[in-house]
Amino acid sequence: MAGMLAAYLDSGSLSLRQAAMPPRPRTQALLRMVRAGICNTDLELQRGYYNFQGVPGHEFLAVVIECDTPALIGKRVVGEINLACGRCEYCALKLGRHCLNRSVLGIVKHPGAFAEYFTLPVENLHPIPDEISSDEAVFVEPLAAACEILDQISIPSPSEVAVVGDGKLGLLIAQVLRAYRIDVIVYGRHEAKLDIARRSGARACITDNPPPAKYPFVIECTGSPAGLRQAVQMVRARGTVVLKSTIHGEVSLDTAPVVVNEITLVGSRCGRFEPAIELLRDRKVDVRSMIAGRFPLSDVVTAFAEAARPGVLKVLLTND
Amino acid sequence: MAGMLAAYLDSGSLSLRQAAMPPRPRTQALLRMVRAGICNTDLELQRGYYNFQGVPGHEFLAVVIECDTPALIGKRVVGEINLACGRCEYCALKLGRHCLNRSVLGIVKHPGAFAEYFTLPVENLHPIPDEISSDEAVFVEPLAAACEILDQISIPSPSEVAVVGDGKLGLLIAQVLRAYRIDVIVYGRHEAKLDIARRSGARACITDNPPPAKYPFVIECTGSPAGLRQAVQMVRARGTVVLKSTIHGEVSLDTAPVVVNEITLVGSRCGRFEPAIELLRDRKVDVRSMIAGRFPLSDVVTAFAEAARPGVLKVLLTND
Repeated sequence: MAGMLAAYLDSGSLSLRQAAMPPRPRTQALLRMVRAGICNTDLELQRGYYNFQGVPGHEFLAVVIECDTPALIGKRVVGEINLACGRCEYCALKLGRHCLNRSVLGIVKHPGAFAEYFTLPVENLHPIPDEISSDEAVFVEPLAAACEILDQISIPSPSEVAVVGDGKLGLLIAQVLRAYRIDVIVYGRHEAKLDIARRSGARACITDNPPPAKYPFVIECTGSPAGLRQAVQMVRARGTVVLKSTIHGEVSLDTAPVVVNEITLVGSRCGRFEPAIELLRDRKVDVRSMIAGRFPLSDVVTAFAEAARPGVLKVLLTND
Repeated sequence: MAGMLAAYLDSGSLSLRQAAMPPRPRTQALLRMVRAGICNTDLELQRGYYNFQGVPGHEFLAVVIECDTPALIGKRVVGEINLACGRCEYCALKLGRHCLNRSVLGIVKHPGAFAEYFTLPVENLHPIPDEISSDEAVFVEPLAAACEILDQISIPSPSEVAVVGDGKLGLLIAQVLRAYRIDVIVYGRHEAKLDIARRSGARACITDNPPPAKYPFVIECTGSPAGLRQAVQMVRARGTVVLKSTIHGEVSLDTAPVVVNEITLVGSRCGRFEPAIELLRDRKVDVRSMIAGRFPLSDVVTAFAEAARPGVLKVLLTND
């Protein structure tokens, strides 16, 4: 069997390796990676947060090489990252993203997309229309996570929504909300990033003193405990804070204002891919300006270093 | 002007004082306290949590002595504790409980009910039907706080709801949920208290290891940071934790499972009085078995000491 190049993380140490081609179970497709995106979660795996050992990577555009559905062969696809068991109570509710027995591409017990080849169940795959470039398609997964907010909560019009954090996810969320004509203000730290939000019609500002108890909805995507505390301060009584950041370790939070002001906190993670693909196809969000650089898979170690630099947006891996 | 007896808290020190009769503004009623209930919030005021200085007390049954609405004079009434400005955006939404300029009976800038006489706006008052005894009527305020949960969230049938905590509020919440035929299990620490929940048809148990990720709804009313962490562990993916405890100081919480499992946390405080009065009138909840003792107002210091003993349920003050 021919070998392949793959990124490998072991106890937080990243290297490029020659690896065996992944075996393909019958219900899965063998995929050749074309583009992959480095996500904050990947950087956290590198920092050793989950004791991860294996091939990382879960944002990708790939071409189907082998699978038992002939129509898919040769197609450009993206893929949902949760591999569901199909038998548990969450799968019965079509919530495979919460499957109790799931593995997760490049995160939990399933080798990821930072490799020349990898596999995913055919049911996880979504063909990508020609209107969406391979670079853009890498953003389907994080864009779906941004869209998830609107699957979870109803934002009546007119409502002013504050997005706290101008990182990759914050900018995608601001753009998704703008695509649905929602009034958005982004609180961030970098004028260049805020300009991306502004081009979608969002207002944006840099301040250490955002207004307290002002917004009916606050989306927290700073990745920091301070950001969560700030979001709780900014939301008005009976308002909603959406938590998009996974923060490692315990967060110290004053819950008294949550109770007294009857605030709702909503945890939010992965989303359905369909609305994300539609938004990209219809050019309702601009992800190209979020690309900070492209590196061939063979330069994955350099690519991770670049992605980890403060202020850098999306770094792509290429395998053309 | 004649004087009156009143409990007085100053920097956490409780005493009985001879005080001046409260002046009655034209929009308010002068009330004579008949019964009042000591709540955990009162004990927290005594512990000095809010720098409270004044007359505490916000659970009561009173008789209207003077007011500009003649039909109310002589009537037995309970009263909503938030004094709203009537002009802010929350008041416009009929959410005076969240009024930005509110004072709160016996808690914030308005002398409370642990006195022979006190005042409240006429619009805050609710006459109490004859079927409800004065002892029982004291529970309207905390019972409204229990009912508030069902004003905030929709619990589809059948759903199993876990109530964490068997204190006064936990037992009222369990009984309210049972009154609406909701399947309830109470996790507590005291068999005698759990028996009150069991008589309403709830299941109840004492355990240090409640099942993880099991319940679609968990109501947290332990008053402790450990209770909040336990509630988050007990709720299933996409489930809801209702926060009823005001916990003082910062709580250390791992927010990662909240995000990954897309859990919703809902802060919940005061509620509308109408459903609480109906539940008592229709004898759908039993509050009499929650009365741990009665003390005359003149013994308020002893009454507070009794209410603060671990495991003691509702202590009433009388002024007959």
